[in-house]
Amino acid sequence: MPPFKTTYRISWVDTDAAQVVHFSNYFRVFERAEEEMYQQLGFTFNDIIRKYDFWFPRVEAFCKFKAPSKYGDVLEVSVVVAEIMDKAVKYGFEMVNKASGQLVAEGYVVVVIADKKLGKAVSLPKELIEKLSIYEES
Amino acid sequence: MPPFKTTYRISWVDTDAAQVVHFSNYFRVFERAEEEMYQQLGFTFNDIIRKYDFWFPRVEAFCKFKAPSKYGDVLEVSVVVAEIMDKAVKYGFEMVNKASGQLVAEGYVVVVIADKKLGKAVSLPKELIEKLSIYEES
Amino acid sequence: MPPFKTTYRISWVDTDAAQVVHFSNYFRVFERAEEEMYQQLGFTFNDIIRKYDFWFPRVEAFCKFKAPSKYGDVLEVSVVVAEIMDKAVKYGFEMVNKASGQLVAEGYVVVVIADKKLGKAVSLPKELIEKLSIYEES
Amino acid sequence: MPPFKTTYRISWVDTDAAQVVHFSNYFRVFERAEEEMYQQLGFTFNDIIRKYDFWFPRVEAFCKFKAPSKYGDVLEVSVVVAEIMDKAVKYGFEMVNKASGQLVAEGYVVVVIADKKLGKAVSLPKELIEKLSIYEES
Repeated sequence: MPPFKTTYRISWVDTDAAQVVHFSNYFRVFERAEEEMYQQLGFTFNDIIRKYDFWFPRVEAFCKFKAPSKYGDVLEVSVVVAEIMDKAVKYGFEMVNKASGQLVAEGYVVVVIADKKLGKAVSLPKELIEKLSIYEES
Repeated sequence: MPPFKTTYRISWVDTDAAQVVHFSNYFRVFERAEEEMYQQLGFTFNDIIRKYDFWFPRVEAFCKFKAPSKYGDVLEVSVVVAEIMDKAVKYGFEMVNKASGQLVAEGYVVVVIADKKLGKAVSLPKELIEKLSIYEES
Repeated sequence: MPPFKTTYRISWVDTDAAQVVHFSNYFRVFERAEEEMYQQLGFTFNDIIRKYDFWFPRVEAFCKFKAPSKYGDVLEVSVVVAEIMDKAVKYGFEMVNKASGQLVAEGYVVVVIADKKLGKAVSLPKELIEKLSIYEES
Repeated sequence: MPPFKTTYRISWVDTDAAQVVHFSNYFRVFERAEEEMYQQLGFTFNDIIRKYDFWFPRVEAFCKFKAPSKYGDVLEVSVVVAEIMDKAVKYGFEMVNKASGQLVAEGYVVVVIADKKLGKAVSLPKELIEKLSIYEES
């Protein structure tokens, strides 16, 4: 399956005094793409929270910053479901400068499915696994 | 009474591509000072939330940006209680570059006391009024 | 002329522990809309910076927060050119919850046109005035 | 050598709708600690930028999030110089909840020394190596 793709235009506030995007913001751009992927799959964090009283804390995040990006740059963000574990999902992501084709950042995030009331990680609901498997890396 | 004072050192992430602090961040620096003022007065947002189930949504925010500030600058932030209304408090703030003495920003924020369960503004508890009046402008 | 309009979907990172958008982020959402307006008018901050060596510091910002917004909410953001002064532009903005039609925030920002080398405000170039007047409030 | 240590109090704006610190903000808290370490070593980003026309882009960032932290929590942040390479430095960091002693986050960041004019990575100046070696892990 091809990865989920979306675009993000760098805003002034994303940059820092080096006149490039602050490294922490790539993680935020990735999360925004993850949110859009959920939405395209037909659910949102909110649905999950309401239905199951689950939420999605991150337990690990990694990123390699390959090239700077600047105010106004449009990034193409790809998200893949790299691994579905019993109680967690690993998402891989890649950001490419749409104009130049240059790889800007690549990384991953491991997200745990946590039951708010129990206060601990739980197994992914089947409907989630089915939906996420659409973007599973083969 | 003299205003509550604290200092804040500009971090790299506070700046933008103009190599100065992004205007939205002055509101965040002010809020941090407000939090420190509460703490010095012997309570925190958390105490209020726990005890009264209140929280403090902002209904108005204003700032004049008088001079840019840069990475590494140390700002002296002053907070005054400009007005205690029945269900709201108006805080005035001022930020001065500690090295140069230059006025960097001045503004105000109006904070409402809201009951989480009722979902509406309520009168300030007496103990809050007493504590806040320490920093009330005369 | 009708105002410039765009939409913005609230991301998880825009929210705070009150489970609503942090007030400082409305200023960022507005700025993003301003950037999109420039782009629709056929120029970007970058063009201006390159051509004239100008940039756009904010000297004043004001916002009334009328209703909270939450993760996943889609805001319709309207931008008007409220006043074109000799060396500054005042933009008015309004954000409405697209699903409910409720007014979320309204405010303004005063932006100065500054010459980077001279380090001071300068008169707006004519081509800028012409373009901005498209969204001038009548 | 013991690591460089500093503390950071979680501000309201650091949290998200899960009522805990947003994962991206741990990277910002780390960077703030890095800045304070430089300052204690007797230099700042600014000094380096001015003297050498160098800046410090990050090429890699990793973090494990071990426990949530909340508004008002005080974190003790430790920074070690994990590896000094020819043209890069790897910093390791750890954040511990000061009240509970619980490990909140641990990770690393790889920072490249880049010449602004050349637009590429360069060897670390000797004075930098000497200073950083104070916090080198043994």
